[in-house]
Amino acid sequence: MLSSEATQGLIRESDSRIILFVIDGLGGLPDPATGLSELETACLPNLDAIAAGGSCGTIAPVGSGITPGSGPAHLALFGYDARTSDIGRGALAAFGLGMDFRAGDVAARLNFCTLDGDGLVADRRAGRIPTERCAELCRLLAEIEIPGVEVAVQPELEYRATAIFRGDGLSAEGDGSDPQQTGRPPLSVTARQETAQTTAAAARAFLDQARRRLEGEAPANMVLMRGFGAYPDLPRFADRYGLKALGVAGYPMYRGLAAAVGMEIAESGPDIADELEVVRSRYRDYDFIYLHFKPTDSAGEDGDFGKKVRLLEQADRVVAELRALEPEVLVVTGDHSTPSIMRSHSWHPVPLAIESRWSLPEPSAVFSEVGCRRGTLGELPSSAVMALALAHAGRLDKFGA
Amino acid sequence: MLSSEATQGLIRESDSRIILFVIDGLGGLPDPATGLSELETACLPNLDAIAAGGSCGTIAPVGSGITPGSGPAHLALFGYDARTSDIGRGALAAFGLGMDFRAGDVAARLNFCTLDGDGLVADRRAGRIPTERCAELCRLLAEIEIPGVEVAVQPELEYRATAIFRGDGLSAEGDGSDPQQTGRPPLSVTARQETAQTTAAAARAFLDQARRRLEGEAPANMVLMRGFGAYPDLPRFADRYGLKALGVAGYPMYRGLAAAVGMEIAESGPDIADELEVVRSRYRDYDFIYLHFKPTDSAGEDGDFGKKVRLLEQADRVVAELRALEPEVLVVTGDHSTPSIMRSHSWHPVPLAIESRWSLPEPSAVFSEVGCRRGTLGELPSSAVMALALAHAGRLDKFGA
Repeated sequence: MLSSEATQGLIRESDSRIILFVIDGLGGLPDPATGLSELETACLPNLDAIAAGGSCGTIAPVGSGITPGSGPAHLALFGYDARTSDIGRGALAAFGLGMDFRAGDVAARLNFCTLDGDGLVADRRAGRIPTERCAELCRLLAEIEIPGVEVAVQPELEYRATAIFRGDGLSAEGDGSDPQQTGRPPLSVTARQETAQTTAAAARAFLDQARRRLEGEAPANMVLMRGFGAYPDLPRFADRYGLKALGVAGYPMYRGLAAAVGMEIAESGPDIADELEVVRSRYRDYDFIYLHFKPTDSAGEDGDFGKKVRLLEQADRVVAELRALEPEVLVVTGDHSTPSIMRSHSWHPVPLAIESRWSLPEPSAVFSEVGCRRGTLGELPSSAVMALALAHAGRLDKFGA
Repeated sequence: MLSSEATQGLIRESDSRIILFVIDGLGGLPDPATGLSELETACLPNLDAIAAGGSCGTIAPVGSGITPGSGPAHLALFGYDARTSDIGRGALAAFGLGMDFRAGDVAARLNFCTLDGDGLVADRRAGRIPTERCAELCRLLAEIEIPGVEVAVQPELEYRATAIFRGDGLSAEGDGSDPQQTGRPPLSVTARQETAQTTAAAARAFLDQARRRLEGEAPANMVLMRGFGAYPDLPRFADRYGLKALGVAGYPMYRGLAAAVGMEIAESGPDIADELEVVRSRYRDYDFIYLHFKPTDSAGEDGDFGKKVRLLEQADRVVAELRALEPEVLVVTGDHSTPSIMRSHSWHPVPLAIESRWSLPEPSAVFSEVGCRRGTLGELPSSAVMALALAHAGRLDKFGA
């Protein structure tokens, strides 16, 4: 049983508020030149204050040595079993775009692409067409009709869009049409299991019609389809934790993760200033706010150590703004590590700090990979975070007499 | 699920190499006179360097308070469930001797012994007859014929040998003939479960004939049989981890453990210098090398604190030799603790250090029971070691998108 599942039957009403601030790709590794990690290099007065004055520790997203994607890493943080609750990218996109996505539906990601005269993929992103052009082309695709299956199409950013299929007997166990490289024709969508035959047939019918509708267009004269995802059947945040929750994220995928566990989601610009404005304006209406900060992860993936340091300092200023709201519980952590020297996600443990009236501080702790290990929370699975947040918020009853 | 089982489906090809150096009975306890453990007393510049510069922590072989035998302790290190994968000593001996040991076979250990005129055991080890004499006597036993069951017998060291029974419906659920003390007659082999009746009958037939064939010999005029072990059906290292693995151990039992999980095994002299020579000469042909260092455990079991200190210093020099090979990942740990003051295996946590490009160091760590607890790997089950080794070697894909 996951730690956060253990809260079942113990949830207590309270008017206390919890903010969960997730700094994406938070953890790092030392720069060999200095021996200091990004967190150790950055100047982080607010984060250090909550590490020393709150409770801190480290979390492991999925398990020893396992490097998680953002989906499983977030689900673990939200207290769900990342191994069994994996959600298809298509489903996350559908949630993140706020589409009408329901139990039984299957969603898939679409990329507008360019086919050459021989029908081979010449550009998998159609020259990164602007979002407005993507929206126009989506309107052409929205007119596609498939017997027995309803289709909805919605643009995302640039060349990206999402399709939802609705009908009886759909399943996400299919492989998409993206050949993953140029110079090859799109693949035929295939069912990975017998139960996905209806979905695969609908997808093929959709793509046949898409080809005819887009063939006069340039540079985006076709779409590639990938990342089938069924509507996930996860316990909802409100039912599980008794929390009226809001997810604030500039990037659709993270809004999607929040929506998948039943949070309301707030659209905002991708900038943290926009996100903070949403948090401030809606703070009073919710018990729990999940706020996502993306650019630290991107800097790590780009291998830009200095940029990640600066972005961590920006995240530190966000912490000051969040403290100013005086939530009963402020949780700051990451979904996983993204060390700049690795240019990728990693398996390393992630700092966690929880500031509340009921914290057990270790005053020598600082907010870093090594510095949070001194804290009183110890080394935990990510799935323990929600239970700890609820406890610090006075939202859990005693277990047993 | 064990941590190392979680690697399923994530294994990635790589040309990186992993060395797992197992210092048997590594952990200890303080000498009451000095307050320092064997590791704290020894001068260990190389081990301290990988503790401070790599990632370190401690491992628990089977569970809190559980003292493991070498078999379960090694299986846990190799990422297998020590509780369900227990392998009979006979099976380990058969593997370690490189015998033709197959699925369905049952192996048992034999001790040549001395019976007195009344048929009572006078010496359970027959005066520790030399290995050459053991081999001669094994040739007598190899001629034994049992209807429906094939028997193979092979000498080990001194008075020890191993027998393999091959036939239909064999099971290892039997109790052997060793009365464990002198002055008693050998026991009759009995089946612990109904399914082991065939094996028990074959074993009794074997021992009846052995008594007749050996009765003119001295001092070894009989054999005692114990440690029935069926051929274990464990997932193989290559299939589970994608590693071409070599096990290098001077002692047959540890070669047996390596072979039981599908490693190739290299015979070598019992001396670490011989073992190192094998490692050096075959290093390039494998992805993974398991190297076993036995004498620290023996010194601990003998209660010889000073000798264990000197042997740890020898192991430290081995670490220097292994680092010189520049493996992408060097893992140094023990299978269990053998504190000299206890003269036995124990349940205490065992130091673990992993040196690789992707380690997360804690510079104040040193290689000791307490010093490794400062490290960033924390306290882990032994079964997490393989997942961590693979992660540090860049041999695991990301889990989920």
